[in-house]
Amino acid sequence: MAPRLEKFFAAKTFCVVGASTTEHKPGNVVAYNFVNHFPGKTYLVNPKGGQLFGEKLYTSLMEIEDEIDAACVIVPARFAPQTIEQCGMKGITNVIITTGGFSEIGEEGEILQQQINDTMKKYGINVIGPNCLGLYSPALGYDTMFLPVTKLKRPKSGPVSIFTQSGAFGAAFIDQLSNLGTGKWVSKFISYGNASDINETDSLEYVGADPDTKMILIYLEDFKKGREFMEEARKISLKKPIMGIKANRTETGAKAGASHTAALSSNDAIVDDLLDEAGIIRVITWDQLEDCVLAFGTQPLPLGDNVAIITDGGGAGVMASDMVTDCNLKLAELSPTVQKYLDETFPSFYATGNPIDVTGSATAEDYKIALEVAYNDVNVDSIVNICLPCIPDLDIDEYIKVTKHFARRKEKPFVTALIGGDEADKAAAQLLAEDIPVFPSPGRAVRALGMLTDYTKYLRKHGIDPKTILVEE
Amino acid sequence: MAPRLEKFFAAKTFCVVGASTTEHKPGNVVAYNFVNHFPGKTYLVNPKGGQLFGEKLYTSLMEIEDEIDAACVIVPARFAPQTIEQCGMKGITNVIITTGGFSEIGEEGEILQQQINDTMKKYGINVIGPNCLGLYSPALGYDTMFLPVTKLKRPKSGPVSIFTQSGAFGAAFIDQLSNLGTGKWVSKFISYGNASDINETDSLEYVGADPDTKMILIYLEDFKKGREFMEEARKISLKKPIMGIKANRTETGAKAGASHTAALSSNDAIVDDLLDEAGIIRVITWDQLEDCVLAFGTQPLPLGDNVAIITDGGGAGVMASDMVTDCNLKLAELSPTVQKYLDETFPSFYATGNPIDVTGSATAEDYKIALEVAYNDVNVDSIVNICLPCIPDLDIDEYIKVTKHFARRKEKPFVTALIGGDEADKAAAQLLAEDIPVFPSPGRAVRALGMLTDYTKYLRKHGIDPKTILVEE
Repeated sequence: MAPRLEKFFAAKTFCVVGASTTEHKPGNVVAYNFVNHFPGKTYLVNPKGGQLFGEKLYTSLMEIEDEIDAACVIVPARFAPQTIEQCGMKGITNVIITTGGFSEIGEEGEILQQQINDTMKKYGINVIGPNCLGLYSPALGYDTMFLPVTKLKRPKSGPVSIFTQSGAFGAAFIDQLSNLGTGKWVSKFISYGNASDINETDSLEYVGADPDTKMILIYLEDFKKGREFMEEARKISLKKPIMGIKANRTETGAKAGASHTAALSSNDAIVDDLLDEAGIIRVITWDQLEDCVLAFGTQPLPLGDNVAIITDGGGAGVMASDMVTDCNLKLAELSPTVQKYLDETFPSFYATGNPIDVTGSATAEDYKIALEVAYNDVNVDSIVNICLPCIPDLDIDEYIKVTKHFARRKEKPFVTALIGGDEADKAAAQLLAEDIPVFPSPGRAVRALGMLTDYTKYLRKHGIDPKTILVEE
Repeated sequence: MAPRLEKFFAAKTFCVVGASTTEHKPGNVVAYNFVNHFPGKTYLVNPKGGQLFGEKLYTSLMEIEDEIDAACVIVPARFAPQTIEQCGMKGITNVIITTGGFSEIGEEGEILQQQINDTMKKYGINVIGPNCLGLYSPALGYDTMFLPVTKLKRPKSGPVSIFTQSGAFGAAFIDQLSNLGTGKWVSKFISYGNASDINETDSLEYVGADPDTKMILIYLEDFKKGREFMEEARKISLKKPIMGIKANRTETGAKAGASHTAALSSNDAIVDDLLDEAGIIRVITWDQLEDCVLAFGTQPLPLGDNVAIITDGGGAGVMASDMVTDCNLKLAELSPTVQKYLDETFPSFYATGNPIDVTGSATAEDYKIALEVAYNDVNVDSIVNICLPCIPDLDIDEYIKVTKHFARRKEKPFVTALIGGDEADKAAAQLLAEDIPVFPSPGRAVRALGMLTDYTKYLRKHGIDPKTILVEE
């Protein structure tokens, strides 16, 4: 059986119920999105009738003669039950309800939610929401995110699919991704809010089967169907990486969550084990999730856990090495020929072990030499390229060129940490603008490699060759 | 007895030995710094004689008739021993040796280092270095950092003193601070490199006693005199906050450190306990240290551990609440009158507990209302102001005004997390430009409060009123 979300995304006719003529209102924004970007036929419904964006405003769903494959309902909560009833009568079986004011606000909302649930069951309607942003896919011209682009920038089409229990998290993360590098990141985005029907497991099933989804990011506060979710994840994580945040880790978080998506906290240590066992890479902070996108979205998986560190600052090398241990990685033992070559090539005060410390005397050419041999060394599985550009003889433009070259070879994961003032900011901005992964500290760069390597280890444990996983192509 | 570093910073006559006429060479940069910024008398020495920056180049130290209070030696390592001998003969008792090529490069360097050590003892010279950046104080016009401002930007005068075992870490961090907010951060900067004489304990003694130092940041890989350091820290941490990185936490880090500052790793759990017991707030990552500067440098200490969270995103509120627990903080129980006022003022679907969730419908006015009552609530010790600006009705300029107002009241610590695309970036930049603490994730904002609160707890444990500590004024 095809995942239930497939019919939403495969819709050829789409209806916006509650299309608004008031600029920037949710019903206006979603109508605009579909009229302008959806390649299928868009129908708009507003009881007042008239026109919007050159399209007819139908006064009722019943007025539409065509069959409707999917609809987005953007009416006040109190009108939602009767609107869903009409959807059912019209034979629409895929409905997104973005409006809030249901189970998440307490007793009054619970009643409305129950009415929707009953109607949904009566007609066999698949429902996304309520209290959500719904669905977004730039490649499909599908966008129920009811915030105007002036408020919420849209990332362009790319390999990452995201599903999230929190719409606000999703919106802010989407906004952030649109400003990350080229902004070409998103395949499908799914915000299912209260999960009255479609939940985290349905979302995972869909993006798992979706050929355009190369990696999966999640934000969860609880599980509606924990067992099914983990079973599904176990299968999918052998084909594409799944990573994300399971918030609500603590009693305090649970208290906050209760007034939000009515989520219940579980014993977090158990959750941690289950996620791990299902091959889901768990991250704790927002920053880390962005780091995942940069690392998995641009670099290949490593074939082992041996890291080479190249640095112009000893302290930064020590901090990176500490993080190598924290992330269960190893400092690579450079091959004897590489070691010999570096000893012969570099001044005696450069450290030619690992970290290779080209010191404050480094030039861009020194970086090139060190990176070339580290990259080509069979004993090295991944590379951390650390630069504090404040040293006297480093030509930052040359360094940027060298870094681009290696980050684009994609035979091994290659991450860069740039730390300092104007020159570091400039170099980071130029590299990121071309989707070259740059991190603001040695620790974050190494941790990004750690996440890539964790996934390699997981795949190997299950007999999968990490070379078969191609996210970044 | 006055701390040994005092005589360095109190120098009225200063000599640059190895002043270079070649632009951007270390000996040229340091000569430039002192000739242009040092209010005392600067002498320059170069065996070739001539002039530099309008000052005479003495061919030898012996040619100078005046007494020299302190000197910076910037000659190749092989010439260093005889130069130090000359310093001794000239009666200079405070010498900074910035050059590298000593114990940090192995056997050959060890010999030179030993020669320096012997001469130093013979004449009773206080030595900073070798293999270091030396000293920097913008207020004193004192700057032996041998990198030109085009490479290494200098932060302006402020409350933070820093000492570091790694010169490269120090340089990059100084560079970074110059780009953080107004850049008005640094009182004294001390990079002591190989610590042949002046070490971490001397540095701590000095900045501890220095009235212009309001907070102390450290980067260490090992301790030359661990016991003395901890004893000193125990006294000073009751008067001003000390925080920093002790790298070399792992076997791997220690291996990297061995080729760097010849540091030996200790059992890190013991180090952790000792730092904790001495009142030093330990941070692990580079980001965290910058967060410390923003938090301690701009906000007062909290008088308790009760945090109020204001957010427009439920998920962000949950993540912040999780971090509240991680950082041993509590979610404040809002006072009943505050609770009642919020219930009466806000729409029913806003969450008026804690977190106060003004939801995706929030306006800047809603933030003002929520922040005002949270700020004034006696049950609230500190405030996290979270904003995902992508919501439809938030006027970002008004929100910026509101945030500035509260961040400047300084009766309670007030931190902001801004997450998203263009509007978040714009708001963060505008706020940071006025030294308003803004963090890129809810977690980092809460963690900043956690560090402030840890210090309050430490002070209270030792019977000190946190109100007596005024870093941010």
